[in-house]
Amino acid sequence: MDDAEAVADTLARLRARRPLVHCITNWVTAGLVANALLAVGAVPAMVEGIDEVASFTARADALAVNLGTLTPQRADAMRLAAATASGAGVPWVLDPVAAGALPNRAALARTLLREHRPAVVRGNASEIPALLSLPGEEGTPAAPSGRGPDVEEGAPDPLPAAREVAAGYGVAVAVTGVLDRVVDRHGRRLVSVRGGHPLMAQVSGVGCAATALVAACCAVESDAVRGASHALAMLGAAGMAAARHAPGPGSFALALLDALSCLDGPTLAFAELTEEALAPFL
Amino acid sequence: MDDAEAVADTLARLRARRPLVHCITNWVTAGLVANALLAVGAVPAMVEGIDEVASFTARADALAVNLGTLTPQRADAMRLAAATASGAGVPWVLDPVAAGALPNRAALARTLLREHRPAVVRGNASEIPALLSLPGEEGTPAAPSGRGPDVEEGAPDPLPAAREVAAGYGVAVAVTGVLDRVVDRHGRRLVSVRGGHPLMAQVSGVGCAATALVAACCAVESDAVRGASHALAMLGAAGMAAARHAPGPGSFALALLDALSCLDGPTLAFAELTEEALAPFL
Amino acid sequence: MDDAEAVADTLARLRARRPLVHCITNWVTAGLVANALLAVGAVPAMVEGIDEVASFTARADALAVNLGTLTPQRADAMRLAAATASGAGVPWVLDPVAAGALPNRAALARTLLREHRPAVVRGNASEIPALLSLPGEEGTPAAPSGRGPDVEEGAPDPLPAAREVAAGYGVAVAVTGVLDRVVDRHGRRLVSVRGGHPLMAQVSGVGCAATALVAACCAVESDAVRGASHALAMLGAAGMAAARHAPGPGSFALALLDALSCLDGPTLAFAELTEEALAPFL
Repeated sequence: MDDAEAVADTLARLRARRPLVHCITNWVTAGLVANALLAVGAVPAMVEGIDEVASFTARADALAVNLGTLTPQRADAMRLAAATASGAGVPWVLDPVAAGALPNRAALARTLLREHRPAVVRGNASEIPALLSLPGEEGTPAAPSGRGPDVEEGAPDPLPAAREVAAGYGVAVAVTGVLDRVVDRHGRRLVSVRGGHPLMAQVSGVGCAATALVAACCAVESDAVRGASHALAMLGAAGMAAARHAPGPGSFALALLDALSCLDGPTLAFAELTEEALAPFL
Repeated sequence: MDDAEAVADTLARLRARRPLVHCITNWVTAGLVANALLAVGAVPAMVEGIDEVASFTARADALAVNLGTLTPQRADAMRLAAATASGAGVPWVLDPVAAGALPNRAALARTLLREHRPAVVRGNASEIPALLSLPGEEGTPAAPSGRGPDVEEGAPDPLPAAREVAAGYGVAVAVTGVLDRVVDRHGRRLVSVRGGHPLMAQVSGVGCAATALVAACCAVESDAVRGASHALAMLGAAGMAAARHAPGPGSFALALLDALSCLDGPTLAFAELTEEALAPFL
Repeated sequence: MDDAEAVADTLARLRARRPLVHCITNWVTAGLVANALLAVGAVPAMVEGIDEVASFTARADALAVNLGTLTPQRADAMRLAAATASGAGVPWVLDPVAAGALPNRAALARTLLREHRPAVVRGNASEIPALLSLPGEEGTPAAPSGRGPDVEEGAPDPLPAAREVAAGYGVAVAVTGVLDRVVDRHGRRLVSVRGGHPLMAQVSGVGCAATALVAACCAVESDAVRGASHALAMLGAAGMAAARHAPGPGSFALALLDALSCLDGPTLAFAELTEEALAPFL
């Protein structure tokens, strides 16, 4: 079973190796994303010009692709970067921002998943189900089974869709929410991460930062489920520490960065990881 | 007469309905804008890809169009979003950033006003006069009359231009400054909002946030003058509350978000709204 | 010799004249850049649309061109703005972000240097050497000589490359790091600035803010070495003041803005400027 010690070990590797994380990420939250990466010891670089994106991905330690503020030009850069990462063995992470609301983003996300398999997809409960293939598309995954124990009030449990996406595309899936869940690429192993604070949902970009941190951890941890769950544990623990000092979302955003920069064993223990095997698909 | 209770009622509706506010806004201040919307209970979404902008506007509760960091691609997205909002009955707000300095922005703003009438235009004393039609353009509005009582020191009183723009295009106009003023679409009803703090002028994006908050309020309040003046009262009250805790502009920016997130009756009473009928145009 | 009094005088001119600083700067850190300019009294404006960039540069008091988040469209805007600034006598500053890692950026930076000579180039120890002409390119500068006394641990001393870039292109060069160094356009005069704090390297965009502050100071100080070194002294002094109040990088970013906004004689004295003549090139 994973625990705070294993997360601390991943964090120590981040701080020692300082992985270069290439981000193609939306411009609303890019500052927070860059600062979150710096806070854990990684080196952020936002590069998306079509002339320079491929050569940069090839030398990066990880790539994070975030569909926010999508434009046709940025979509081209994402395809090129994902193809380069896939070809060069650079682990990459997909954040299908608003794929649940925008069909063109869901289509782009599905193409990226099918053609350039990321290590991890990180999304929320409205985004992950949008990644399931549409009727008539090739590669329709098996039907889901099983139901997780912790469902956001009023929202459908995203675990079945997460398992289906994982097994259908062969990628680890991280669904974040009140309880974060990471499913392996067979849809059979589940790591749940308890941590965080409601203020995290009141700061624009915490999800984007989570995606970038997952990419950073995947640069130093080859097991994608461990990389993703350790990143989410770091963020969750930092969120809990930050909330003690923050009277509102403005202060919280910077307290979160402060907390990420000084995570240690006792703080990391705020987040709780549990692993379980899931019942097989029916 | 409007008062803090009416503003509190609008805020309660924001928090209850959580309107989705589609923003096409500059990338310098988009983070602050998103966080300001979250702080009052609205849900921000920055979407401007030409492939996705129209479908998103159609499902949004309000649209804010901000001309900052304009590019030809973004101008196309703005025209499409404004046309969609206008056709679908989604209230939208125009922020003619730097229209006073850049003729191409003034021209774009006038086109958007003429063709896709927003609910509100929100600008400052240098931007609003730039929206008046040029000689030779159609729809030249009537000459202004009257002078407001509270003029920024050294700057010409923007009220006549605001009235002219309002009556000429048939839109409510909000001119912000030391004293915020909102004129109805006939140029006859004036609501003045007293509040805020000088530090608000030292934080990049407070004006952009004001525009987005006006859009959010217009999603829950069909009277544009009430929506605009209530949004400005919220921001002004939050600014006054924030200034108590902020030794400088860096701290102030986050204290403003903290204050927006916990506005209540007593805090809202910091801002003062007064309404008056203006003398008719001559 | 320059001292805190001279820096205070430049700051007083910034606050009195409020120079308009046109920035073409990356969207990751544009908010911090804008707020840093506001904090010292300058007026930021981020304008890069190809339709509007030239007319805006022509009326600005200074221009800052930052190669971060480069796209082909932004490169076109940079060329146009630099040409306009050069032709109109508007001082401009180049920040060759990541020129050491991305050959296309190094090539663009060299073209801008050759064709539209900025007042100052501001970069770090990995970026400045990338500006040296490649073999076969015209205008190959003389070989460097001399070694500065303060070298970042483990990194090669950037001073020889800085002198070579300065003399080769005829521009002042500011290389920032633990010790900031500014070389005049003949590569013979060196001003060193001691100040700052390690937390400055943990906040995304402090280098970008430095570049913009250099541009602002060059708007009120025609000696480029003085303009650049005074800007770096302001930032360094603010960094030292800010670090006293900041437990981590999140708080530090805003404390830096607070400190910039209230710099005065005693605070400015935290930064130490020393000037020396360098041995001639061999």
